[in-house]
Amino acid sequence: MGYTVALVGATGAVGTRMIQMLEESSLPIDQVRFLASARSAGKTLLFKGQEISIEETTENAFEGVDIALFSAGGSTSAKYAPYAVKAGAVVVDNTSFFRMNKDVPLVVPEVNSHALEKHKGIIACPNCSTIQMMVALEPIREKWGLERIIVSTYQAVSGAGQSAINETENQYRQILNEGVAPKDTTANILPSGGDKKHYPIAFNALPQIDVFTDNDYTYEEMKMTNETKKIMEDDSIAVSATCVRIPVLSGHSESVYIETQKVAPIDEVRAAIASFPGAVLEDDVSTQTYPQAINAVGSRDTFIGRIRKDLDAEKGIHMWVVSDNLLKGAAWNSVQIAEELHARGLVRPTKDLVFDLK
Amino acid sequence: MGYTVALVGATGAVGTRMIQMLEESSLPIDQVRFLASARSAGKTLLFKGQEISIEETTENAFEGVDIALFSAGGSTSAKYAPYAVKAGAVVVDNTSFFRMNKDVPLVVPEVNSHALEKHKGIIACPNCSTIQMMVALEPIREKWGLERIIVSTYQAVSGAGQSAINETENQYRQILNEGVAPKDTTANILPSGGDKKHYPIAFNALPQIDVFTDNDYTYEEMKMTNETKKIMEDDSIAVSATCVRIPVLSGHSESVYIETQKVAPIDEVRAAIASFPGAVLEDDVSTQTYPQAINAVGSRDTFIGRIRKDLDAEKGIHMWVVSDNLLKGAAWNSVQIAEELHARGLVRPTKDLVFDLK
Repeated sequence: MGYTVALVGATGAVGTRMIQMLEESSLPIDQVRFLASARSAGKTLLFKGQEISIEETTENAFEGVDIALFSAGGSTSAKYAPYAVKAGAVVVDNTSFFRMNKDVPLVVPEVNSHALEKHKGIIACPNCSTIQMMVALEPIREKWGLERIIVSTYQAVSGAGQSAINETENQYRQILNEGVAPKDTTANILPSGGDKKHYPIAFNALPQIDVFTDNDYTYEEMKMTNETKKIMEDDSIAVSATCVRIPVLSGHSESVYIETQKVAPIDEVRAAIASFPGAVLEDDVSTQTYPQAINAVGSRDTFIGRIRKDLDAEKGIHMWVVSDNLLKGAAWNSVQIAEELHARGLVRPTKDLVFDLK
Repeated sequence: MGYTVALVGATGAVGTRMIQMLEESSLPIDQVRFLASARSAGKTLLFKGQEISIEETTENAFEGVDIALFSAGGSTSAKYAPYAVKAGAVVVDNTSFFRMNKDVPLVVPEVNSHALEKHKGIIACPNCSTIQMMVALEPIREKWGLERIIVSTYQAVSGAGQSAINETENQYRQILNEGVAPKDTTANILPSGGDKKHYPIAFNALPQIDVFTDNDYTYEEMKMTNETKKIMEDDSIAVSATCVRIPVLSGHSESVYIETQKVAPIDEVRAAIASFPGAVLEDDVSTQTYPQAINAVGSRDTFIGRIRKDLDAEKGIHMWVVSDNLLKGAAWNSVQIAEELHARGLVRPTKDLVFDLK
């Protein structure tokens, strides 16, 4: 009657939140299977109080799986997601590997769940920094149109995984308990595990997330540009981002400036956001009410505040957008996609395989 | 032969840096006098190894003073700066009280030291977040003109004084050593000592610095708007800011977007910045070279990097600007103004008093 759900990358920072989201999900689940690297195989993880052994991720591991959630890095998704599809599963991929593939819907359920209808076996979950911005801006785009977006992010270290969280906490202990200067603390992971140099994040702000592309923007910044256009199905929306890591453990904040196509009265913008699913208005400066990272942690919602007119541009609006990057930015958005696939009757094997087996 | 220099507010976070800047200054200084509240009077501070007693700030404390540096809060400047002028001193005020007064030059020496010529006894040092942005943008404005600025700041807690530094460190100790959740740590100062509610900054980002004005912007944000127009002597430059406190001890970072009047080739922008006094170009993404708060601490310079074209606007440029908010943002810019006054022969009593004694 229910589904067999496989979770690839169950042991990571996002994976542990995915387990929690699946435990709390309304999806009819018969069986959960945890897949990971050979290193973790044989260990156990709890699901609803029951111990489940971790299996190694292999080409043949997806037999009988209905829904496969991937969150183990782009190369794992690239290699194994097509085998999951071939075995009859629907894949919800939380990595960047398939996001810009024309055969892959890129979905924030509140914004474009209709795109799921054309899926060919793989659905991509957008980047954390993009998702929360989409929840904040879709209610505005629907009513007044969007000309451009300029966004500066304040991103939490958990976006770089559990090892980045550990590194950050260790740097603070070095500073506060051992008297080490912030610039002399131990850094082996941030700003990007895949890049050459590593810098401390404790008491610092690093204007680099992911590696640089050849246009002097980082991949993280270009994700916000390209994914926004794909999700909103409008290549004409101008998006330029500056993505910055700050010493917050979880909860991404964003300073978002937009220009709308039609003049949008601020009171109506607030009302549109307040009534949009997944969006929570926290905007009353008279009571110092605005979104904060430490308050957003643990919630599936996206919090929006500091909404105000630009001082000069008639169609310009500034706002402050905060969400738990591990939940709406990753684990919850992925499980939410799975729930939406179920609601639409789209959890079914794909006959015409379009993704190459490697 | 040399000057008598009075420092009002010598015991604060900025005051201690002012002492250091005066010790290292080329100003001919005969005598330094430290003024503070009655609470600190009688204590001593070192200047070039010599113990100097702190005197109470009173209306009569400025007899014989040539240069008075004020950094003890707006109300102290409002009350005592006119008495210092009456006594024949030139005041360099680091508070916001006189900044927008038409009779007060607002000066970043690299940008508009010519404005000193018309001083009437009081010169204002701009807000920390404005100063570093001016150093970064003046070389661009000179060559290509400036249409608009959109800035999101990443400001350090030391901008709110030593008590905010102590509070931040205590919050981290509560979290890391006592297992307190970030949202449950003790907060009595930030986001603004003058506002009603206080929130933790450790592992958080607070989109409020100073209190709110009636247009939903904070005073800190409006300082960036109004001071930029005054320093650049151009009310037509559009400036909208989002000012955010992040858990950094010292070193303000800023994500700055500008639109120039004429198209500015990025290579030429880099060259213009590199040759501008007080500005240091740190901009090579191939070696992950960009400004970082922890590296800027202790330097008088402003560091600029991540310079790149907007992806859509032909005249749009993004950059990342970092400086030590206690030095160029306050103590150094104030002492630098004093040096410039000396160099221009402007350290002299004012005859026609325009500031009311209270």
